[in-house]
Amino acid sequence: MSTRANFDQNLNELKAMLLKMAKKSEQAIKEAMIALINQDIERAKVVIDGDNEIDELDQVINDKALLLIARESPVATDLRKINVALKVSSELERMADMAVNIAKSAVHIGREKHIKELIDIPNMMEMALEMVSDSITSYYSEDITIARKCAEKDDNVDKMFGILIQELLGYIPRNPSSTNQIIQLAFVCRFLERIADHSTNIAENVVYLVSGQRVNLNA
Amino acid sequence: MSTRANFDQNLNELKAMLLKMAKKSEQAIKEAMIALINQDIERAKVVIDGDNEIDELDQVINDKALLLIARESPVATDLRKINVALKVSSELERMADMAVNIAKSAVHIGREKHIKELIDIPNMMEMALEMVSDSITSYYSEDITIARKCAEKDDNVDKMFGILIQELLGYIPRNPSSTNQIIQLAFVCRFLERIADHSTNIAENVVYLVSGQRVNLNA
Repeated sequence: MSTRANFDQNLNELKAMLLKMAKKSEQAIKEAMIALINQDIERAKVVIDGDNEIDELDQVINDKALLLIARESPVATDLRKINVALKVSSELERMADMAVNIAKSAVHIGREKHIKELIDIPNMMEMALEMVSDSITSYYSEDITIARKCAEKDDNVDKMFGILIQELLGYIPRNPSSTNQIIQLAFVCRFLERIADHSTNIAENVVYLVSGQRVNLNA
Repeated sequence: MSTRANFDQNLNELKAMLLKMAKKSEQAIKEAMIALINQDIERAKVVIDGDNEIDELDQVINDKALLLIARESPVATDLRKINVALKVSSELERMADMAVNIAKSAVHIGREKHIKELIDIPNMMEMALEMVSDSITSYYSEDITIARKCAEKDDNVDKMFGILIQELLGYIPRNPSSTNQIIQLAFVCRFLERIADHSTNIAENVVYLVSGQRVNLNA
């Protein structure tokens, strides 16, 4: 196989592994939320235990990417492609960590009756997951427009976060015995906000991949 | 210059940049804590604004490391050295993000009178900073013993975190109007706990660097 064909094949393998990792991370976020809503501690534990697999995928992608650079000595655009693949892997790994954190909050709350039905938090998760999905689509299609649209949605997630935190903290004085639960729910909101941030980071890397320009889409 | 000498020189340059980054990250953590204790909002803002510099260092180290791999095609131990340098850079960047988060909490609390004098939180910071320092020392001296000792300290930080969170939340029912401040202080404890985790991650990378074995020192 020519060096070119070999490089392309390896890069495609990396991208296939990233797609697998993205699916697993998205799934972990959804599962953690279902565990939280249904107070299903076993389900939460599956998410926590499953994180090893995603960590290993990140490690394998990392090692494969560095080996590819060492073997093929890519320059310019090709080097940038691997650079971005490494960054996307790292962001996905961190997203999966947030899923674990949500699952841990579900375990902490346990089967204590929820102070109210969880509606806004799952809605916030949907907003964050939409950003995850957009960021991955923008990466695979190398589409700057989708990347920018993804990052624009971060403002809404941030606003939602601010509103939910204030609402949650407002419950504490009247429900002092539920303080722990309320704090855990506030943490969950924070984790969702971080997932949105990681999506924005992927979007920024897509802009860099396509244009070679480092941008801050958060500003 | 021979390829070998060239590789070593570049690796040393990378390590020098990492040391600079470590110093800046440690400094940012300390400054954020002083800003929190003294309720010095200007000082907190300096930490927040200064994070760009650390992010850029991470970027420069990342690009330099990948270029070095592409140019020198290192194998085995040499490739592992660059691999670990990349990981250390990423962990330091994330530590600095935690300093920014602490500084943001200081801004959120503003000049509202503290519910009590802050003593345990600065103590927790000292524990975390000791781990940061140990992890960096273990990296530069490639010393597995120091790396393992660093990771062992993580248990104490985790315990301290659990104690402080319970204590802080206990204040809420009697001080409902200070809920926001108390939550921010709880967040600060969480950020310090994360700094300790990042130190453990560096320690794990040192074990990998020296032994070639991936280990989980957190278990």
